[in-house]
Amino acid sequence: MPSYRAPLDDIRFLLDHVIGVDQLATLPGHEDATPEMIHTVLAEGARFCEEVLAPINQTGDAEGCIYHEGSVTTPAGFREAYRAYCDGGWPGMVAPAAFGGQDLPRLMRIVLDEMMCAANLSFSMYELLSHGVTGALERWGSDALKARFLPRMVDGSWTGTMCLTEANAGTDLGLIRTRAVPAANGHFRLTGTKIFISAGEHDLTENIVHLVLAKLPDAPAGTRGISLFLVPKRIVQEDGSCGEANGVRCSSIEHKMGIRANATCVLDFDDAEGFLIGEPHKGMRAMFTMMNSARLNVGMQGIGLAEVSYQNALAYARDRRQGRASGGGADTGAEADPILVHPDVRRMLMTMKAYTEGLRALAVWVGLQLDLEARHPDAGARAAAADVLALMTPVIKAFGTDTAFEVTNLALQCFGGYGYIRETGMEQFVRDARITQIYEGTNGVQAMDLLGRKVPEDDGRLVRHFLGLVHADLAAAVAVPAIAALAARVEQAAQALASTTKQVLTRAQTNPDEIGAAASDYLRLFGLVATGWMWIRIAMAAVRTEAGAPQRTIEKLGTARFFVERLLPTVHALAAQISAGAEPIMAVDLS
Amino acid sequence: MPSYRAPLDDIRFLLDHVIGVDQLATLPGHEDATPEMIHTVLAEGARFCEEVLAPINQTGDAEGCIYHEGSVTTPAGFREAYRAYCDGGWPGMVAPAAFGGQDLPRLMRIVLDEMMCAANLSFSMYELLSHGVTGALERWGSDALKARFLPRMVDGSWTGTMCLTEANAGTDLGLIRTRAVPAANGHFRLTGTKIFISAGEHDLTENIVHLVLAKLPDAPAGTRGISLFLVPKRIVQEDGSCGEANGVRCSSIEHKMGIRANATCVLDFDDAEGFLIGEPHKGMRAMFTMMNSARLNVGMQGIGLAEVSYQNALAYARDRRQGRASGGGADTGAEADPILVHPDVRRMLMTMKAYTEGLRALAVWVGLQLDLEARHPDAGARAAAADVLALMTPVIKAFGTDTAFEVTNLALQCFGGYGYIRETGMEQFVRDARITQIYEGTNGVQAMDLLGRKVPEDDGRLVRHFLGLVHADLAAAVAVPAIAALAARVEQAAQALASTTKQVLTRAQTNPDEIGAAASDYLRLFGLVATGWMWIRIAMAAVRTEAGAPQRTIEKLGTARFFVERLLPTVHALAAQISAGAEPIMAVDLS
Repeated sequence: MPSYRAPLDDIRFLLDHVIGVDQLATLPGHEDATPEMIHTVLAEGARFCEEVLAPINQTGDAEGCIYHEGSVTTPAGFREAYRAYCDGGWPGMVAPAAFGGQDLPRLMRIVLDEMMCAANLSFSMYELLSHGVTGALERWGSDALKARFLPRMVDGSWTGTMCLTEANAGTDLGLIRTRAVPAANGHFRLTGTKIFISAGEHDLTENIVHLVLAKLPDAPAGTRGISLFLVPKRIVQEDGSCGEANGVRCSSIEHKMGIRANATCVLDFDDAEGFLIGEPHKGMRAMFTMMNSARLNVGMQGIGLAEVSYQNALAYARDRRQGRASGGGADTGAEADPILVHPDVRRMLMTMKAYTEGLRALAVWVGLQLDLEARHPDAGARAAAADVLALMTPVIKAFGTDTAFEVTNLALQCFGGYGYIRETGMEQFVRDARITQIYEGTNGVQAMDLLGRKVPEDDGRLVRHFLGLVHADLAAAVAVPAIAALAARVEQAAQALASTTKQVLTRAQTNPDEIGAAASDYLRLFGLVATGWMWIRIAMAAVRTEAGAPQRTIEKLGTARFFVERLLPTVHALAAQISAGAEPIMAVDLS
Repeated sequence: MPSYRAPLDDIRFLLDHVIGVDQLATLPGHEDATPEMIHTVLAEGARFCEEVLAPINQTGDAEGCIYHEGSVTTPAGFREAYRAYCDGGWPGMVAPAAFGGQDLPRLMRIVLDEMMCAANLSFSMYELLSHGVTGALERWGSDALKARFLPRMVDGSWTGTMCLTEANAGTDLGLIRTRAVPAANGHFRLTGTKIFISAGEHDLTENIVHLVLAKLPDAPAGTRGISLFLVPKRIVQEDGSCGEANGVRCSSIEHKMGIRANATCVLDFDDAEGFLIGEPHKGMRAMFTMMNSARLNVGMQGIGLAEVSYQNALAYARDRRQGRASGGGADTGAEADPILVHPDVRRMLMTMKAYTEGLRALAVWVGLQLDLEARHPDAGARAAAADVLALMTPVIKAFGTDTAFEVTNLALQCFGGYGYIRETGMEQFVRDARITQIYEGTNGVQAMDLLGRKVPEDDGRLVRHFLGLVHADLAAAVAVPAIAALAARVEQAAQALASTTKQVLTRAQTNPDEIGAAASDYLRLFGLVATGWMWIRIAMAAVRTEAGAPQRTIEKLGTARFFVERLLPTVHALAAQISAGAEPIMAVDLS
C-alpha cells in the first residue's frame, strides 16, 4: 500500500521564505493569520489527511461506489471519514464567520486541498464543489437563500454540486436543454438531464445542494440564455430542516477509469423545485465564480497526486536493489545496489521532484493572490492580484495536471512491473490523475482561455504584468553568483515567451485559427517559464536562508539547476512549433 | 464500443512504395511471397482481427481472467477465438515448413502483429511468446526436443511462455534463485518461483511450454551463471501426447491496470522436469533470441493501440458537435460544428496520425530487415540488416511505446469526459498501452541498450550505417521541390543526433554515468530523427505515385510537414538537455 506524508517542511519553506505568507496577517480581518497559526492549522490538516484519508484511498478504489435504485453507497470508511472531517471544522475553514465559518485565508485552503487530494482524491471530490456552491451563493444568492442554505453547507451537513454538462453539451454549454419555468411562489420548476455530476448522489449527508444551469422560457440562444438555479435534493423547510424529496433522481453512476470512490452521476430533474441565483440569463457569470475556484483546485489535485507518487517512487528506489552503479558497486555488502544509483532512475526522480516542488511554489503564490484580491486595502494591489488570478488559473489547472499526469507515470515507471499491478497503488494515481486533465474544462479549453481570452485582454496587460514580476526577480538573481547562470537561462525562456506571445497575437489578427493552433503549446511554454521563475525564487530564498539550513540550500539549488538545464529547454522547441503556425495543423483534410 | 478497421491501404502503400516489399520474392525460399500474395494474406488476417478479435476486446477487459485453484479461465469468447486462430493456420505463419509451418516472410508477421494488438492486445499475448519459444527452440534445442515440441507449437496446440522474472530479479536477472539440478535420465529438476509470467496459465490449450531461466549447482554468479530450460506444464510422452502434470503450478494471477484479459501469473516450480536448451550457463544468449523478437513485437503492440485509438478519436471528432469554428460556423444548418474544426482538436488528431503512420513505416522497414538478415544471399547485406535490427529494436520498442502511450492519451482527451468512462473503450487503450513501456525490458532498459551497448559498438559502426542511409535519402529529397525544405530540417535533426552521439560517447570515457544520464532523452531524439526520415521517405513515395493517387499525395505531404514543423523541433530541446550532462541529475542527494 502506498504511504503519504504531507510535505510540511517544503510547504513551510515556500510560505515563509518564497511567497512571504506573513503578508496575510496584515490584511484586514486576517490579523490572526500569523505564520505560526497557519502552520499549526496545516499540521493538523496534514495529520487528518495522513491518518484518516490516506488509509481508505486504495480500498475505496477497489470497492468503488454502489448504485441501487437511485441511491449511492460510498466505500467503507467514507462516512466515518466525512464525519471526522466535519467534526474537525474543516468544511467551514474559509467560509464567512456570519454563516459559521472560520474565515481563514483562502491560501490555507489551497494548501489543504493539495494534501487532501494527495491522500484521497475521490474523498476530496465529495466536498470540493461545496466550496464553489458556497462561494456562488454568498456572492449571488438572496439573503433568504443564504440564511437557509449557507450554515448547513458551512458546517458540512450538506454538500454541493455543479450541474453543467448534458449529453450534448459539454464544452459548449450554450447547447444545454434543461428548462426552468417560473412557478407560482417565485420558485422555478426544472426539467432535464445532467451528466458527469461529481458527488451528485451519496450517503454522506442528508441533503445535497445542486447548482444547475438551465434555460428560462424566454431565454436567448446560446450561453447568453443560461440561468443558474439552486435545486436541493430534499426540499428545505422554513425551519431549515430537510423535508420531502425534490424532483431530482440519480438514474445511474458512471464506471470510470479512476476516482472510482467518487460517484459520477446522471441526474434527472423532473419538475424539480429550484431557486434562481443571480439574474435571469446571467448564469454563466455566476457559474464562473465557482468554476475559477474549482479550476485552481483541480491544479492542486494534480500537485497532490504528483507529490504522493513521487514520495512512493523515491521510497521504492531507495529500497529496491537491482544491478550495480555504473562506476562499480556502491554497496559491496549486498548483491545489488538500490536502483537510486542508476542515472536514468534519478532522471525520473529529479523530474518528479523539480516539477512537483516548482508547481507547488507557483500554486501557493497564486493562492496568496486570492487573499490579496479579497482583502488588500489598496485597490491597485487588489486589481493586480485579480490580474494574476485571471492569467494563472488556466496555467495552474492545465500545466499542473498535464505535468502531474507525467509525474504519476514516471513514478509508476520507477516501480517497473510492480507499478502495473494494483497492489502497489501506483497505477491508481495514474488513473486518478487522468481525469484532472479533463474535468472543469479540458486542458485544451484552459489553453484557449489563456491565449484566446486572458492574454489578449486589454492589449496584453496581464502578460506584461506577469513578465514584469519575472524580470524583476531575474534581475535581482543575476547578482547572486550561485544563481546568476540559471537566472540568465530563465530570462532567455521568458524572452521566448514574450516574443511568442507577440507573434501569435499578430498572426491572429488575420487568421483566428492561429490562437487555437498555438494554444496548448503556448500554455505549456507559459507553465515552464512560470515554474522556471519560481525555481529562481526558490533558489534565492534558499541562499537567503542558507545559514539556518545549509543542506536545504544545496538541495534546492541542485533541483533548480536540474529544472533549468534538463526540463526548461523544451521552451525553445515549443516556441519553434508555435512559430510554424496554424497551416500545418489545418491543411490536411481529415473530414 | 470502439471500432477497428485494419489500415490496409496505408500498409499496402508503405510496403509497396516506401520499403519495397517486392524484394522479399527475390530471397531464396520466399519466391512465392509476391506483393499480391502478401496483401491477400494480410487482408485475410485483417478480417480475422476485425471480426473475431476486436469484438471480444472490451468484454474481455470487463470480465478479466478468473483464477481458481491453480487454473485460469479466460474471458468469454477467447477459447473460440483461439480455435479459429489455429484453424486459420496463423500460429505457423512464419514457422519452418519442416515443423508444419508456412515459412512466410517475418515482415508479414510484424504487420499481422500490429493488427492483432490493435484489435485485442490481451488475446495476442496468449500466443505472442509462442513465437519466441519456437524461435529459441529451433535455434538452440536438440533435434529430439524439436521433434517433440515444435509441431504442436507451430499448429497452436500448445502455447509458450518466457519465465525470467522473480520477485527479486527483474531488470537484474543475475539475481535469480530458481535452481535446476541434473536428474538421472539427462533431464533436470527445477525449483523456484517466477512472477509476471504472461499467459503462464490459461484454458486455451492442453499444454503450455515454459522456457525458464535457472541456475545449475555449479553456476558462476550473476548473469554468466544462467541456463535456459524447457519445462512443459504437462509431461510430454514419447508418442507426443500429453501425460501427467509436471511440477509447475500457477499460484495466483495479478490484478493489473490493463491487459486484464491476459493472465499474468505467479508460477511455482517444484521439482519440475525440464530440458536444457543450449549450453549450460549460456542461457542469456538463448534468451536474447526470444527477447529481441518480443521487443520488436511490443513496439508493434504500441503502434496497434495508437492506430485503433486514432481511428476512434477521428470518428468521434467528425461526429461530436460542440462550439463553432473560429472563423464562423462551418455548418450553419446545425446548432454546432463537429469538433474536428477546432485547431486544438486537429492538433491532437494530426499528432496521432503523424506518429502512428510514421512509426508504422519505421517498423515495417525494420521488419523487412528480419527477412534480409535471414535469407539474403549476400553476406554483407545480411550483416547490414543485422546491424539495423540491433540498433533499431530498442528504438521501436521504447520510442514506439512511449509515443503510443501519448497517442492513446490524446485520443482519450478528444473524447472529453466520455473518454474517461469505460463504456467508450478509450481508457482501456490507455491502460493496455501502459504495460508496453514496462515489459520485455522497461523503456529505460531499452535506452541503456541503445546508448550503452548498440551505439558504442565497434566505434559507432551501427549509427554511422544508419545515418548513412538517412543522409542518402535526404540528399535525394532535397532535389524534390515539394520536399526540399522539409528534408533540410530533418537533416538538421540528423546532425543534432550525430553531434549528440559524439558528445555523449566522449564524455562517457571519463564518466560512465553520462550514458545513463543521457539514455532516455537520446532514445527519444533517435526515434524522432528516424521517424522524421521515414516521413521524408513517405513523402518521396507519395510524390512518385502522385499520378495514381493525388489525394494521398496531398495528405502524406501535409502530414510529413506537420511532423517536421510541429513535432520534430523537440529534437533540439533534447539535444540541449543531454548536453547539460550527468551532473544536474546526480548532484542532489536523494538517499
